[in-house]
Amino acid sequence: MSEKLQNKRHTLAHLLAAAVLEQYPHAKLTLGPAIDTGFYYDIDFSSGGAPGDTDLKELQKSMKKLINKWTEFTHEEVSADKARTTFAGNEFKIELINEIEARGETITLYTCGSFTDLCRGGHLENPKAEIDTDAFKLDKIAGAYWRGDEKNKMLTRIYGLAFDNKEELEAYEKQIEEAKARDHRKLGKELDLFTFSELVGPGLPLFTPKGTLMRDLIVDKIMRIQAKYGYQKVTIPHITKSDLYKTSGHWDKFGDELFKVKGQSDAEFVMKPMNCPHHTQIFDSKPRSYKELPIRYAETTMVYRDEQAGELIGLGRVRSITQDDGHVFCTVDQIDQEVENIVKVIQEFYTSLDMYKDGNFWVSLSVSDPSKPEEYLGDPNDWNKAESMLEAVAKRLQLPYKRVEGEAAFYGPKLDFMFKDALGRERQLATAQLDFVMPARFSLSYTDNTGSKQTPVMIHRAIAGSLERFMAIMIEHFAGNFPLWLSPVQLAIIPVSETQSPYAYEVAETLRKHGFRIELDDSNESMGKKIRNAKQERLPYFIVVGDKEITNRSVTLESRDTGESISLSLDDLFLRLTTENNI
Amino acid sequence: MSEKLQNKRHTLAHLLAAAVLEQYPHAKLTLGPAIDTGFYYDIDFSSGGAPGDTDLKELQKSMKKLINKWTEFTHEEVSADKARTTFAGNEFKIELINEIEARGETITLYTCGSFTDLCRGGHLENPKAEIDTDAFKLDKIAGAYWRGDEKNKMLTRIYGLAFDNKEELEAYEKQIEEAKARDHRKLGKELDLFTFSELVGPGLPLFTPKGTLMRDLIVDKIMRIQAKYGYQKVTIPHITKSDLYKTSGHWDKFGDELFKVKGQSDAEFVMKPMNCPHHTQIFDSKPRSYKELPIRYAETTMVYRDEQAGELIGLGRVRSITQDDGHVFCTVDQIDQEVENIVKVIQEFYTSLDMYKDGNFWVSLSVSDPSKPEEYLGDPNDWNKAESMLEAVAKRLQLPYKRVEGEAAFYGPKLDFMFKDALGRERQLATAQLDFVMPARFSLSYTDNTGSKQTPVMIHRAIAGSLERFMAIMIEHFAGNFPLWLSPVQLAIIPVSETQSPYAYEVAETLRKHGFRIELDDSNESMGKKIRNAKQERLPYFIVVGDKEITNRSVTLESRDTGESISLSLDDLFLRLTTENNI
Repeated sequence: MSEKLQNKRHTLAHLLAAAVLEQYPHAKLTLGPAIDTGFYYDIDFSSGGAPGDTDLKELQKSMKKLINKWTEFTHEEVSADKARTTFAGNEFKIELINEIEARGETITLYTCGSFTDLCRGGHLENPKAEIDTDAFKLDKIAGAYWRGDEKNKMLTRIYGLAFDNKEELEAYEKQIEEAKARDHRKLGKELDLFTFSELVGPGLPLFTPKGTLMRDLIVDKIMRIQAKYGYQKVTIPHITKSDLYKTSGHWDKFGDELFKVKGQSDAEFVMKPMNCPHHTQIFDSKPRSYKELPIRYAETTMVYRDEQAGELIGLGRVRSITQDDGHVFCTVDQIDQEVENIVKVIQEFYTSLDMYKDGNFWVSLSVSDPSKPEEYLGDPNDWNKAESMLEAVAKRLQLPYKRVEGEAAFYGPKLDFMFKDALGRERQLATAQLDFVMPARFSLSYTDNTGSKQTPVMIHRAIAGSLERFMAIMIEHFAGNFPLWLSPVQLAIIPVSETQSPYAYEVAETLRKHGFRIELDDSNESMGKKIRNAKQERLPYFIVVGDKEITNRSVTLESRDTGESISLSLDDLFLRLTTENNI
Repeated sequence: MSEKLQNKRHTLAHLLAAAVLEQYPHAKLTLGPAIDTGFYYDIDFSSGGAPGDTDLKELQKSMKKLINKWTEFTHEEVSADKARTTFAGNEFKIELINEIEARGETITLYTCGSFTDLCRGGHLENPKAEIDTDAFKLDKIAGAYWRGDEKNKMLTRIYGLAFDNKEELEAYEKQIEEAKARDHRKLGKELDLFTFSELVGPGLPLFTPKGTLMRDLIVDKIMRIQAKYGYQKVTIPHITKSDLYKTSGHWDKFGDELFKVKGQSDAEFVMKPMNCPHHTQIFDSKPRSYKELPIRYAETTMVYRDEQAGELIGLGRVRSITQDDGHVFCTVDQIDQEVENIVKVIQEFYTSLDMYKDGNFWVSLSVSDPSKPEEYLGDPNDWNKAESMLEAVAKRLQLPYKRVEGEAAFYGPKLDFMFKDALGRERQLATAQLDFVMPARFSLSYTDNTGSKQTPVMIHRAIAGSLERFMAIMIEHFAGNFPLWLSPVQLAIIPVSETQSPYAYEVAETLRKHGFRIELDDSNESMGKKIRNAKQERLPYFIVVGDKEITNRSVTLESRDTGESISLSLDDLFLRLTTENNI
């Protein structure tokens, strides 16, 4: 944010504090900074009454009244003793003053209107003139520990939103509202896609039949696309002796995030946080010839990382992460073609979601940070070669790429695909990573056409990335209105009355045989209720079957997205659904 | 084995010891019992030379010579001191004598020919007359710790085979040879189905592309069959807080076999050894009505059990066990139909393997052991009800069942399906289990048609059981000659020369489009070599394409199983393969 906006928000924190003290004279102020969307102030109300959400309006009114007298900020430098006298009885401010004194820094008090606060400065010169009172708003109340430490006292945090003008505030509020309406945790429950259990634990989602179907649809689509490029499924267990990760280098890199596994023996097991080391062992299970390369393994499997409980958000961040992982073992000469194939898979997959289009994505050529060589494994010459090879492919394929230093994996540089969602939020999804390091660490080899041993190159790639995170993003991106191919249920068939049930069954069975996912609603509910249900489930289509449809051997199809309702013969219905389903 | 055969084998152990002492006078005898297939003797050769496998023939010759003088066993009771004098210098026998003395038991020495051994008895009266010297054979040498304790001295164990007559010995040797030829560890490597890695650890198989394909073929077939009965896939993580298993009762029952998982926090996690507790949490994720029942969840997923390293045998016993698990939540009235449906799935699946046929399987009605009520959870009345319900279904479906006490799960009685493999070995594979316990422990409920809360019943079921064990059994049962539907590669296409390659490609592509798994061998090898390769891979069919086939737009199909070679039009080829594939 601009310095001006920063100062505006900081000034508003003071104004909030002044308004609070007017109504709650017993309140003890602590700290009140500007933040990305406005400001907050942490206040101790424990010696008297505290405001609730319903009191925010009144406080806001006070702020708008007080600001009329806020035309100038003044400040004075004071001694620590003077400051301690000013804030006598407020142990929080005293603590701050003692610390500033200990650091030997100057102590300043800022005053505007009749309100004075301990502060380092950074305000507007004339708040009354510079603040648009329609551009800020008290937002919500939350609890916060003094200095963020749960061993300290719990304070009351009052949040305010603040922008330069009313339009920006409204735009932000609208986006928040939209994000709330699309929150995948809320929609996931409404659409019955996944659940969490306290007995199982946080960050460990359980997928219902519909959620599992959606996972399978995503995986099947990727598998189908990449089958053209010769990927073969493999299967590995979820644990390993720690030796595997000590060899690969993950042991040191993952550290605390590794779940350790203990059995009856002394052997040290861990849950896999990655799949590549296991896949190297399948490559290494027999002697390989150059004639077999490239060998391309794909596997959709859960990896486990011990994310902090506080960081787990629905499916957005979990401990059981399903990766649609793939590893290519090839010669240096084959890298170019293999990376191109991966980009083609990414292109085809994200096109089916209407996300792979100009302006909606960019590619991060994530390279090493030359100032921190200790963070990367392997030979710097190999790194240079790998980075230029990836850049060459990006250039040749005319990808919209930017070079970003310090974003490489510890074993090699990457192409990371960044897509914008419907709310304009940027998400890192697909990735292709070049790796000269791991094959050497595992002593992988193949025999070249002269009969001598060579070390293959590895390419790591993911298309959807983590299935959980991908589903969270898709639920929010589409607000639950998934494209036809991704909808767990694609179409509801609603007979007008019992009379039409046999024909409705016939249509349903024919569609099911063609592989469509159908819900036939022959319950006793009213037509209106059935249609509302189909809409609430966000089904792409529903079909109403009445006598006219039976006579004409047709259906009346209503689209969720366009709202249009058209009459179609059964043949035309199949054609339309099949075409849309196969994008 | 009969007492007579037991005595015969025990006598042969003495005879072996006598032969050993003749040739290796420094040998110290320890213990030599009869076993299921013959006998062995553990001997300490450490003070001089020891026999190797090549010396067994000579020892066997000695035994056959010595036996001519073995016409009578005599024995005498001796004091411990006398016994210690007799075996002076043999610390093993002295240890045994001291123990017998401490227990206050009589010490006996048995003598036959000129050989005397410390022994409790149990021999033939006249070995020369009663032993057929063509019916025993020294088999192999292995190491064994004194008294099976690895802290003790390593001894040499000499094994012998012994039966009542030559025919039985030969039949046994043939079976062993056949079992060796079919050993799934050997065939798994030859057919490139799975591998183990020392870095990953024992009991944790890695499945290659072909092995993974085979797993998927099994799972897909079961999924397709059970889809008719309304099973829906769900997805759960592989770990959980221990609370889940404390609630289910598995925490106490599994004990040491549970892998414990430790992250950064204090939370106690475990790897799941079962899936049912997780599945209850999906059922419990929202209020359920009787209208929704039965709810049937299916999932093919790995569970983890810490089997002892010494007990791990290829895929036969592993630590990462893939279960094709299923759980039905239903009312008591629905049990009968649901169990019938499960039996139908088992019948259809095992029929496709030609194993579900009279005389080739039986069903264990595995019920509780009334003398050990402490081993079972839940109300004895519920147990009685569940056991009679299962028995009633078994009767009604005319299953060849036997009631087996003590084989129930801790939560309920089971129907366990026991199939014979090609070598006549009995294997427990599919299972259906009734459970009145777990739903109550998890407080599961649904609303019945009067609006009151009821507890559902759970049915646990597996069709293939553990995929790993199932694959091991199938590999050995079929000796790698899998039925068409289960073959990772179904057919090789071999053009006679380069000229026929385009037509060979055309046939291959057409077959692939129809979903068949084809290998086209257009390498530079000779025809003979190519055909040998196809046979070595145990492909169900191969097709040779020459000029005649191009002219007639036909193929010449050779069958692995019948060896017959027939000419077919492309249409007839599709028809034949499709029919065979869909059994």
